[in-house]
Amino acid sequence: MFAHRHLLPLVALIALPACLSGQTPSPAQTDAANRLIELALRDSAAYARLGVLVDRFGARPSGSQNLERAIDWIVAEMKTQGFDTVYTQPVRVTHWVRGTESATLMSPRQVKLHMLGLGRSVGTPANGITAPVLVVRDFEELRRRAAEAKGKIVLFDYPFDTTLHPFEAYGDAVRYRGIGADTAMAYGAVAALVRSVTPRSLRTPHTGSLRYADSTRRIPAAAVSVEDAMMLHRMQDRGERVVVRLVMGARTLPMATSRNVVAEIRGSEHPEEVVVIGGHIDSWDVGQGAMDDGGGSVAAWEALRLIKSLGVRPRRTIRVVLWTNEEVGLAGARAYRDSIGTAVETHVLAMESDNGVFRPRGLIFAGADSALPAVRAMAALLRPIGADSVIAGESEADVGPLVRLGVPGMAINTDPSRYFWYHHTEADMLDKLDPADLARCVAVMAVVANTTANMDARLPRGAVSASP
Amino acid sequence: MFAHRHLLPLVALIALPACLSGQTPSPAQTDAANRLIELALRDSAAYARLGVLVDRFGARPSGSQNLERAIDWIVAEMKTQGFDTVYTQPVRVTHWVRGTESATLMSPRQVKLHMLGLGRSVGTPANGITAPVLVVRDFEELRRRAAEAKGKIVLFDYPFDTTLHPFEAYGDAVRYRGIGADTAMAYGAVAALVRSVTPRSLRTPHTGSLRYADSTRRIPAAAVSVEDAMMLHRMQDRGERVVVRLVMGARTLPMATSRNVVAEIRGSEHPEEVVVIGGHIDSWDVGQGAMDDGGGSVAAWEALRLIKSLGVRPRRTIRVVLWTNEEVGLAGARAYRDSIGTAVETHVLAMESDNGVFRPRGLIFAGADSALPAVRAMAALLRPIGADSVIAGESEADVGPLVRLGVPGMAINTDPSRYFWYHHTEADMLDKLDPADLARCVAVMAVVANTTANMDARLPRGAVSASP
Repeated sequence: MFAHRHLLPLVALIALPACLSGQTPSPAQTDAANRLIELALRDSAAYARLGVLVDRFGARPSGSQNLERAIDWIVAEMKTQGFDTVYTQPVRVTHWVRGTESATLMSPRQVKLHMLGLGRSVGTPANGITAPVLVVRDFEELRRRAAEAKGKIVLFDYPFDTTLHPFEAYGDAVRYRGIGADTAMAYGAVAALVRSVTPRSLRTPHTGSLRYADSTRRIPAAAVSVEDAMMLHRMQDRGERVVVRLVMGARTLPMATSRNVVAEIRGSEHPEEVVVIGGHIDSWDVGQGAMDDGGGSVAAWEALRLIKSLGVRPRRTIRVVLWTNEEVGLAGARAYRDSIGTAVETHVLAMESDNGVFRPRGLIFAGADSALPAVRAMAALLRPIGADSVIAGESEADVGPLVRLGVPGMAINTDPSRYFWYHHTEADMLDKLDPADLARCVAVMAVVANTTANMDARLPRGAVSASP
Repeated sequence: MFAHRHLLPLVALIALPACLSGQTPSPAQTDAANRLIELALRDSAAYARLGVLVDRFGARPSGSQNLERAIDWIVAEMKTQGFDTVYTQPVRVTHWVRGTESATLMSPRQVKLHMLGLGRSVGTPANGITAPVLVVRDFEELRRRAAEAKGKIVLFDYPFDTTLHPFEAYGDAVRYRGIGADTAMAYGAVAALVRSVTPRSLRTPHTGSLRYADSTRRIPAAAVSVEDAMMLHRMQDRGERVVVRLVMGARTLPMATSRNVVAEIRGSEHPEEVVVIGGHIDSWDVGQGAMDDGGGSVAAWEALRLIKSLGVRPRRTIRVVLWTNEEVGLAGARAYRDSIGTAVETHVLAMESDNGVFRPRGLIFAGADSALPAVRAMAALLRPIGADSVIAGESEADVGPLVRLGVPGMAINTDPSRYFWYHHTEADMLDKLDPADLARCVAVMAVVANTTANMDARLPRGAVSASP
């Protein structure tokens, strides 16, 4: 997952040189930043470690043994790396399982559709749901054709708008995944299908969560590939009777216990003041969760290791948190927030990488406008790797609970062009990430965390300008 | 499929204006060509018809009911279109069926690999073959590691060279699909896996034929996705023991009967002289065979319909042939050649579209150099749609048996950039083709066929300059 960002037209901010902001980095900050960048680019540990994580443990859905074994391994590895503390926080998590599933076109001819059930969906009866299909483009067309929906499987064939920024297009299209089932149910549908939310497909279904508003009236829902959605739409347009049999063994099991992973270097002057960096360690149950979000998790971890390797204790505490259960509930994010209680006041920054560790262009800041000069000064330190732009935006999902309590939030503004090709699919595999780009993301996290932890003043807190 | 082409550096030929060749098209030829182009671009029948073909009948593998039903429908449709004759030629074809299949990584962890068995492969025993895997990059590495291959499943993790022209890269990599099984068997392997031959993957396996040299000693072989091949390779590089269980229900059934489809407009002056245009109507058993080669088949058919609609009988006969069984045996191509006997001498051109009906850039000519001026003059008629370049190359597969007997061969030089993204996969679906590009390919076939059929002189026959 990732947080849908509202991109503001901050060209002026981006273009403003840091030297004009009155926040030119100190020579010591610049030196440390350059050393961290050099270490990150030279050191290939992050990509190799990510490879072990995703190849050895694979997909890491909430409630799975894979996820807990991956966490065990991470904790054991971290404990060999000399951090001041490494521990886990127990988190009660939603335990949704996919089960056996299929969608088969029965009329006008029989052929298997490429599908993935949506996370949190209820299952079908064991012998499935076989029903005629009503294909609509969007909610508006469903409203117009309300009389046709009763007893049908409603397919939302809503396209990904490639003229928009990919994250904007995702935010636009993902509504059908989120509330398509409930909307279709309201019109009497017996199940819902949604076109996978992606600008590119090789018959590739994309899963992801839906939301039910009502705990009793729920219909099952699945994503089909773009190709399948378009084919069914063409068949309907030709006047053919389209019938699909949907079989989903999806179930929500009793809550399971997972863990957030926490590792930190304690600050020398203000150990109670904390810079948090992290990613989410859970993933969907398909692919390897390399991009979403093994890469972000390992980048944060590696950043802490590099800061440790500098041999200079930062003035404030730097803490890595690998949140669990981002994909189906954000329970890890809430558990972390709850665990710190009033110490949220002394959290000086919360940064997550969950946009994919593609080539970084700069920083996305979710916080008070008054903090922007300091953020731009930090970004200037990333000029050697071309990551010195700053835009205001929303925070990533796992730091949201902290940002809403006033903690300044940060994300990496990475190249967004490929994220939704792989997002929540079997194709989210290690090879989709580039070692050099991952190294640059490590550098971004290390420089931001170490600089924030060593600044004379804390970043100003306050209203988030970019929140909706 | 497609014929691997040897692209010659014919810049000089491409650049030479047709007016210098002494073969400037006559005003009547130019008028007819312009009318055909206008009709093709205005008339959307080809894309709609292709949609019906691929959506209604789906994949059309040799020996399948889908293929024969598609042929029945094509013949019935053609018979309504006023051609002088429409008929089919029976062809005995290889009837290979995939059956149920899977490849499961058993060690270092259990996970399903994304695979497709290779066409013509033998199956495994019912409980599969479970064996350690030896990953090699290429034949050379297998030779070096010969001692390790016995009893193993050999995986060729050979990459698609994206620095080459896509068709050259395919020709380079497809050797592993073709003879990887036999080569691995010679070193004592019990099965072979090959990395799918593609520059782009979303965990997408690509099938295609293999060739066994020996009728008795055969091991099963499958393609795995690029991502899976790379993952297994990484695991081996880490020193992990990689074990795969391969289950393939593949079987070669008794020969089946399929048909070539033939439709023609008889020539007014030289009915015995024949211009053949066509595509292959069979496909692999995955996806819809829209690109490979529903598009080429429909383009040729639509070209004949447009020529007919001109209301002017051509001087020579124009014949559409939709060959069957291109993918697993080329039996349709041989049957057509055999059916014409000595009339091959009066075949004046054989043109197939099997490179995907992407945007056409011009013509690929497989014939005597002395014919090039006339070909360039024809190509000049395609300038309005930007398809006026000419290169020498090999013929497409189904016209190969005719070209080897001296018939001038022609193909459309279409944009090759996307062909191998979809080739032999579940993603070969209608949406991968663009209606305007298909219309342009129709125009190319119509103009080439009609112009060739109305020239004063036949194209010179003779040695094919570009043959290897």
